[in-house]
Amino acid sequence: MSVARTDPELLAVSRADAPADLLLKNARVINVFSRTIEDGDVAVFGGRIAGVGSYADAKQTVDLDGAYLAPGFIDAHMHVESTMLLPPAFVRVAAPAGTTGVVLDPHEIANVHGIPGIRLLMDQALGLPMNIMFAASSCVPSSPLETAGATLEADDLAPLFDDPRVVAMAELMNFPGVINGVPEVLEKVALGLDRALVDGHCPGLGGNALCAYTAAGISSDHESVAPDEAAEKLNRGMRLFIREGSAARNLEALIPIVTAANAARVSFCTDDRHPGDLIDEGHIDHIVRRAISLGLDPVTAIAMASLHPAEHFALRDRGAIAPGRFGDLIVFDDLDAPRPRRVYFEGTLVAEDGAMVADCPDRPVPPDFLGRSVHLPADLSPEALRVTAPAGQIRVIQMDPHQIVTGQLTSEPRVENGACVADTDRDMLKMAVIERHRGSGAVGLGFVHGFGLKSGALASTVGHDAHNLAVVGTNDADMLVAARALSEAGGGQCVVRDGRVLALLELPVAGLISTGSPADVAERQRALWSAAESLGCPHHDPFMPLSFLCLPVIPSLKLTDRGLVDVGRFEVVPLAADG
Amino acid sequence: MSVARTDPELLAVSRADAPADLLLKNARVINVFSRTIEDGDVAVFGGRIAGVGSYADAKQTVDLDGAYLAPGFIDAHMHVESTMLLPPAFVRVAAPAGTTGVVLDPHEIANVHGIPGIRLLMDQALGLPMNIMFAASSCVPSSPLETAGATLEADDLAPLFDDPRVVAMAELMNFPGVINGVPEVLEKVALGLDRALVDGHCPGLGGNALCAYTAAGISSDHESVAPDEAAEKLNRGMRLFIREGSAARNLEALIPIVTAANAARVSFCTDDRHPGDLIDEGHIDHIVRRAISLGLDPVTAIAMASLHPAEHFALRDRGAIAPGRFGDLIVFDDLDAPRPRRVYFEGTLVAEDGAMVADCPDRPVPPDFLGRSVHLPADLSPEALRVTAPAGQIRVIQMDPHQIVTGQLTSEPRVENGACVADTDRDMLKMAVIERHRGSGAVGLGFVHGFGLKSGALASTVGHDAHNLAVVGTNDADMLVAARALSEAGGGQCVVRDGRVLALLELPVAGLISTGSPADVAERQRALWSAAESLGCPHHDPFMPLSFLCLPVIPSLKLTDRGLVDVGRFEVVPLAADG
Repeated sequence: MSVARTDPELLAVSRADAPADLLLKNARVINVFSRTIEDGDVAVFGGRIAGVGSYADAKQTVDLDGAYLAPGFIDAHMHVESTMLLPPAFVRVAAPAGTTGVVLDPHEIANVHGIPGIRLLMDQALGLPMNIMFAASSCVPSSPLETAGATLEADDLAPLFDDPRVVAMAELMNFPGVINGVPEVLEKVALGLDRALVDGHCPGLGGNALCAYTAAGISSDHESVAPDEAAEKLNRGMRLFIREGSAARNLEALIPIVTAANAARVSFCTDDRHPGDLIDEGHIDHIVRRAISLGLDPVTAIAMASLHPAEHFALRDRGAIAPGRFGDLIVFDDLDAPRPRRVYFEGTLVAEDGAMVADCPDRPVPPDFLGRSVHLPADLSPEALRVTAPAGQIRVIQMDPHQIVTGQLTSEPRVENGACVADTDRDMLKMAVIERHRGSGAVGLGFVHGFGLKSGALASTVGHDAHNLAVVGTNDADMLVAARALSEAGGGQCVVRDGRVLALLELPVAGLISTGSPADVAERQRALWSAAESLGCPHHDPFMPLSFLCLPVIPSLKLTDRGLVDVGRFEVVPLAADG
Repeated sequence: MSVARTDPELLAVSRADAPADLLLKNARVINVFSRTIEDGDVAVFGGRIAGVGSYADAKQTVDLDGAYLAPGFIDAHMHVESTMLLPPAFVRVAAPAGTTGVVLDPHEIANVHGIPGIRLLMDQALGLPMNIMFAASSCVPSSPLETAGATLEADDLAPLFDDPRVVAMAELMNFPGVINGVPEVLEKVALGLDRALVDGHCPGLGGNALCAYTAAGISSDHESVAPDEAAEKLNRGMRLFIREGSAARNLEALIPIVTAANAARVSFCTDDRHPGDLIDEGHIDHIVRRAISLGLDPVTAIAMASLHPAEHFALRDRGAIAPGRFGDLIVFDDLDAPRPRRVYFEGTLVAEDGAMVADCPDRPVPPDFLGRSVHLPADLSPEALRVTAPAGQIRVIQMDPHQIVTGQLTSEPRVENGACVADTDRDMLKMAVIERHRGSGAVGLGFVHGFGLKSGALASTVGHDAHNLAVVGTNDADMLVAARALSEAGGGQCVVRDGRVLALLELPVAGLISTGSPADVAERQRALWSAAESLGCPHHDPFMPLSFLCLPVIPSLKLTDRGLVDVGRFEVVPLAADG
């Protein structure tokens, strides 16, 4: 489709000796190299920017009449599975928001389907009007304290790098493994360094441990929550991705550390972005607007959303409005709140006034990947959820609806017939994580405070990162109904009361992703939330915290199919508080 | 010698679980990422920086007692031939000045010996205590208006990139060829883009022509002399190398455009640096000091001399004091005038108090490359220098001793016996450029104003870029003696009066490079200058302008073995001013 940089026809257009395909006249061009604004024209030919300055001749001319023209936005790190959308559907909602590039770490689907799952998303991303890049998922499973559907070693990951869209080894979440020099982990780091680069994930890391992590070659981090933490990582040579997603939002805390001198080493990412937020707030454009509203210079914010991630990933053909780079461009009117009015990808208009205008159809998903990922034991019975009461107090997970970290309580259990049961009066609900990849019958059981349900149950096959089936409820019967409903649906999220499914979001692809449109998914999510509210849950979206209650690499008390995990001790612990 | 980033022993030192090889305690660490200064210790192991922060245990500990510690300096672009030193000798003078990395474009020797000449310098650079990188010489010869010893096409250059030290296609001086899409030129650009990157050279270029040059993928320039020119190049996406060498000095003019926002895209280079200047003033350290004295923030100046060129050339293991990067470090005391007191290369002390302490011996030069490059016709006679007087006025080159550009005069010749001859009263000397690679007998003849000789002649086998034998004099006899003296010496520079060689600098390697020490070369240069002064020459160093009088890609009137070249018209022109 697009011409090479050394195409003589491109150079003829640059010289103004031949007409451009597209000429954007009278723009205020955001120059991310010098972080200035220039008045001028931008000529595009064969998908690339031929020239910036003064041009007159083109097949199509658009007079921007003083509107701003900026490079398209790039998300430096995200898991597209969190949008619950397949790549074409994701593009249909993200492209109108000005996103022209994204680095996807497909580690959610990799935990379910392994390399074939990654390949599925890579196939789905082919030929879309967005530069969809991938990072090779480095930590599948996230820890040995859970049962995932696949285990990926360096040898499994290596062939991925033969695809030029694979631009990094994805976030090396096993930072203790790097720091302590675990051979299998270092093998993945060495592979990433050899083939591309290695992105990081090291919440709270500092001091000598951070030195070890960076010495090994880990070159970015997106987990900083505090300014000092972020500043130290910058000083040790890491590029910083400031994360502002749906679950974790770090922008406000970190914006104060950005200076004119260090901004070149700072980018934005969403990490996890939910479909409703994508539709309602936007994508990287939302972060840019919010950063500006928090006081960041607008041109610097745009550079952090374009050139800076391009430099990190060595994308010399993207990330700026400059001759030879691809024509990934956005038009907007208000520098204090850039809202993309037109979005061009490789010189073609793809979105206008928030709506897709380019073709971006769904692609069929091979039947092997549809509704085939939830395997519960055939004989799953109430007995599987029974918790024999221990002597004394029990550990209880303290859920915070706005955080992915949890607290840890100890409490007297409510006991009936020798078994611990949910106690709605004290908001102490039962939770189960049921292994769903192999139908092994492994079930982790525990209790959680914070959901506020007065009746019924919630269940989800989205449960970071192993994505086993997580269910929380006021009674075992509804919990079982919810688990079976998801099994029948082939994956998803549901709300059950009195044996009846009140709402169901089907996620047939790996139990994580819908085959529906962004609007469908968002509508079904709202129905879920509304149903959860009818059970007494006071939170906007209880499925977000539910999905992170399983993640045994984020403090402090979590539940996997192996049981309760004390993340600080990095081991499975008994229910009994004194165990 | 050095360990890999993923070496478990390195990580153990980072964690402070094992002793460092070298511990630099109590440093003021120049942090080029955030452009700040941190107090701390730097631990080095296996040639790499293991950690920055707080460390205690090491085989060798050096208390810096609050001295500054910065990354070693990198010269982004230079022709080592201009130092007249072989790489080991160059390192012995540049390393004590704090240079730990350099990108050499060996295009001078390539014009004489082609690829074997490049390979000679690459061999000479092996194993030295400096990260000597190379750029593949893209424009040999510089133009079709001169006769060089070799012609290099893309196919000749391609194998060079198999050596990991080759980090770029060197300055694409044939910018009209790029802009106008000349296939053989674009082939070289495409090769460079495919294998690394392509550095540029585009004096005065702007507007649509600059767009074409950058669209093709040329990513840097070091030829800017004016702030507006440099700013435009930055805005079109080029990285800027601010050049401050011996011949061309652009620092003072360009420093004002450097801002905190754009500095990440600006580096320093010397391009051409003469041995005496290296010894007397320094290398990149001299530019850093001068930039600071001109008002640039010291830490920014250091970043422009370290991290920024490292980023341009994708050297992720160099250019900063950060875990995992090589221990290329300098110690200095005065932030306002950094003068390297200690220089470490890959963790080893290589220079102290301006003197080399590491071993850096000369390497033998294969006999084929010694004194074999000057081939004059056996029968070179006074007749070869005779200029038959044309009717009317003649073109005269106007030499400026401080510029590599020349002016163009027209003047009445002094005529004797039907031939134009030198006229010392009007400082109109005769000049000849004698083809010396093939002994073809081609001689270009002309007249030059500005040398001020009252007697004798100067000659040089250094004559950019084809390096034919250039001689300027007050009489043909001395000019012939000078030419023959250089032929006998196998290359060099000399001063002759009354048939006697007053001073001679032998440059037996390609007629460009001495096999002597830096001090020897500098001393012999001073002897040359002093001898030239005795002929009446008022200039400090007349050989510098003499060597650039031949360069037909720099305006405006030049002399090659083909004759007078009007660079604006890019063609050979007759001596007669009306021709």
